[in-house]
Formats: sequence, C-alpha cells, structure tokens
Amino acid sequence: MLVIGEKINASNEYVAEAITGRNGGYIAGLAKAQADAGADFIDVNVGTAKQTRQEQMAAMEWAVDVVQAATDKPLAIDSDIPDVIEAGVRQYGREELMINSVNAEPEKLEAIGRLKIGHQVRLVALAMSAEGIPPTAEGRLAACELIMTHLARFGINEEQVYFDPLVLPVSVDSRQALITLKTIEQIKSRYPKAKTVMGLSNVSYGLPNRKLINRAFLLMAAYAGLDAAILDPLDSRAISLIKVADILTENDPQCRRYIRAYRTGTLIV
Amino acid sequence: MLVIGEKINASNEYVAEAITGRNGGYIAGLAKAQADAGADFIDVNVGTAKQTRQEQMAAMEWAVDVVQAATDKPLAIDSDIPDVIEAGVRQYGREELMINSVNAEPEKLEAIGRLKIGHQVRLVALAMSAEGIPPTAEGRLAACELIMTHLARFGINEEQVYFDPLVLPVSVDSRQALITLKTIEQIKSRYPKAKTVMGLSNVSYGLPNRKLINRAFLLMAAYAGLDAAILDPLDSRAISLIKVADILTENDPQCRRYIRAYRTGTLIV
Repeated sequence: MLVIGEKINASNEYVAEAITGRNGGYIAGLAKAQADAGADFIDVNVGTAKQTRQEQMAAMEWAVDVVQAATDKPLAIDSDIPDVIEAGVRQYGREELMINSVNAEPEKLEAIGRLKIGHQVRLVALAMSAEGIPPTAEGRLAACELIMTHLARFGINEEQVYFDPLVLPVSVDSRQALITLKTIEQIKSRYPKAKTVMGLSNVSYGLPNRKLINRAFLLMAAYAGLDAAILDPLDSRAISLIKVADILTENDPQCRRYIRAYRTGTLIV
Repeated sequence: MLVIGEKINASNEYVAEAITGRNGGYIAGLAKAQADAGADFIDVNVGTAKQTRQEQMAAMEWAVDVVQAATDKPLAIDSDIPDVIEAGVRQYGREELMINSVNAEPEKLEAIGRLKIGHQVRLVALAMSAEGIPPTAEGRLAACELIMTHLARFGINEEQVYFDPLVLPVSVDSRQALITLKTIEQIKSRYPKAKTVMGLSNVSYGLPNRKLINRAFLLMAAYAGLDAAILDPLDSRAISLIKVADILTENDPQCRRYIRAYRTGTLIV
C-alpha cells in the first residue's frame, strides 16, 4: 500500500503558523520526518479559510520549494482550489507527482483538465459532487462515473486516477464504514485499472480512541482493495499494520519487506 | 463477534500437566480469567497424543466439571475424537454448548449425528476432509457441502453450524490469507443462515511478530463475515480490536458496547 504523508496541512495550527511566517525549517522537518518514516508521497496543503486565493498560491509555491529541497519523495499537491494546485504543479516541475484532488464538480474538472498533466501524474478523485458526499455506494459510484468521463476527455487515463470512496462517521450512521468498504470494492470492479486512496480519520469522528478505530478500518479497507492511504507516517503502529496488510493481500509475496522492517526494528506489535 | 477462549488446551504443556495431575485450581483459574476477559464460550481440549481414548474421555469428564463449577459461560467441547466429545457432552448436561469439531470425514459425521444433539447446540465444522485442508476456496466449499448434507440428515440445521474456513501460513504460500477470506465470503453467500468461526494463529506461522499478523487478519476476516474467533481473550489488544470490528460491521449499531468498554478502561489503543 502506498503511504501519503498528511502532516503538512494548514488545518493544523502549527503548520498554518509556519506557512504564514515562512518558517521553512519547520516544514522541511515535517517533510523529512515523514520520508524517513516510510511515506511514499508528501502531501502539501497550505490552505486556510483566512487566506485569499493569491495568498494560497504564493504559499503553495513557497512550500513546494521547501519540501522539494528537503526530500526526494514526490509531492501530493493538495488544495480544493484549482489555481492553487496549478501554482504548485508549475513550481514543482517534476513529472512524478500527485494532484489532490478533484471531485465531480464540472468547473474543477475543467480546470484540472486545462493543466494538460502528463501521464506520470496521479490524480486523487473524490467520489462526491458539489452537493456533498452521497450517503450510498451507488451515489459515490455515480460521482466516479462522471469524473472519469470528464477526465477521459482530457486524455487522463484510468491508470492515473486514485478514487477516494470517502467515509462518514460511524457514530452518526452505523452503516457508513461498510458503505465505504463496498464502494472501494465496486470502484475496483468497475475501474480495474484505477487505484483507490483514502484518509481514514473521518470514520472515528465523535468516538473515543480514534486511532484504534482508524487502524482497524485501514485493515478492512486493505482487504476491500485500498491501494493508498493518506495518514500520519509517524504513527508506527499504522505503518506496521500496513506492512502486515501487504503480506496478507499478496502485495509482499515473499514477506521480504515485512522481514526487513522486522530486522530494522520498525515493526510495532 | 463471538469470542471462544482457547486457553484450556492440552497442546500447552502447563495445561497438559494440570489435566494429568487433576490440578482443578489451575484449570478453574484459566476458565474464570477468560470469562472475566470477555469470552462468550470456554473451549475445553484435554487431548494429547500420549493419552489413550479412555484416558481422554475421563480427563474430559473431569475438566467439564471443573470448568462448569468455575464459570457460567457455556463450554466448547473440543476434541477430534467423537467418543471424547460424547463423554464431554454427556457430563456437561446443559443445552447451550458448542461442539468443536467435525469435518468432512463420514465416520466423524456419523458419530456426531448419533449424539442426537438439541437445536441449541452449536457445531464447529472444519472445511476439510480426511485428506487434509484443500488448498483452494472451491475445495473447502466442497467439504462444507458434504458436511452440511450429512448434518441435515441428522436433523441439524444450518443455523447451528459454525463453518471454519481454515487458514494455512502465508509464509509458505502467500495466497493463503486471501483464499481463507474468500472462503468465508463464499460460505456466507452459500449458507446465509450458517455462521463462521476461525482460529487465527496458523496464518502467521513461520513469521516474526505473530500477534501483529493475527490481529490484522482478524480485522480482515471480520469484514469478510467472520462471526466467531477462537483466541486468547487475555490478549486485550485483540479483544479491543474485536469491539472496534463490531462497530465497523454494524454489530454494535449505537457503539454502546464500544463506549462501555472504553468507560470501564478495557480498550487498549
């Protein structure tokens, strides 16, 4: 399973402060720590509600430079504003990157399409529309359908797309974990060449011991077909469980990566 | 998910010694500890290769008395010798019990059928024949088919049967975890009224940090449709994950049992 490190996100107040104050050392440190802990991609999200679009574009350009200087790992340029994504992509320059994210809103799809991204770029596509997250798997599949139709028109292949099935809290609606897991299965069946990705933490909203719930959900999602997770790579227990998930789902056929992690002492029981 | 406490098993040398020496305090202590830790059934397996069938029958009668005096939890009478099961069932006397186990061997099925067990008895049925564990899901389903046909002739209902899909080590064949999980799904689809049960530890044979692997496999199995697990209820991490699995799979719809476990301090993150 691919690990996308989530820690450089301005929804965290310390990160927001470091971005506003252009504290490169703090951001570079987060990038390096996540890379060392096993992140395959470093997510960069500089957006806060207080900033204008222009401010976010400038912050993204700065953050891309800082993270790129700190680590060789590819970036996930993360924003819900297409102009901010575009600023990040141009500043980054490398072919291997992830764009996080589009959804089924036509204007966003048009904006991402206009970027004329190369075939090495991976694109996170949220299974939702402007009206929000559909409560059923069928509704989310319909959003994926609309997204894929649009993306295909811009020459973006199924192989490049990482569909995010999205998850709503089980504390609010007890069916939601299973709905998300079934959505993953249906996406994999409908789009066999596409990948799936998910942030986990929404599932446990409103409940105690959230990390315990997130980790359990991660394992179920791995079996359902999840290809990538957006999480904190410094959570060694989560990373250990991903290594186990890989041996159980035939993604580490000779258990080589698992044994190596064991020998280097990075597995937490 | 139902928890079947596995600790009273003569494959453990201390347990074997306690049984041979008729050390009732030791066995009663294991029974009580497992009941207090949340076991729904207490498994009782007194068999060792060194003992004759008559010795095992006497040991089972003794152990059933000891465990029944120590806890109100129902027992799982566990042996691969039908006469030993019969001795345990007669000694126990209660209607609510589990028989662990039969498989697709006709003589065993005949012997269990002759017990004329009541409709409250639950019966663990291993998806294997006298030739061993089939390497494929199809082979295991064929064993289930044969077992169910035989049991039906003896008036045993699908509702009473707990099919064990069985698991082989991923270290030997990397496909085996997925084969077992698919077997669970297929059993649930083919026999919607039957239940599934599994011991987990075989999956991790030959690998380091086995508990980590067993717990991850337990969560995937819960999503695949596992109804009961045979495990050590004193492994608080495994029990905590079962409580999480129950909220994620709609078996604890209002998260009441999870919240209660949190409040009593029994959840381990």
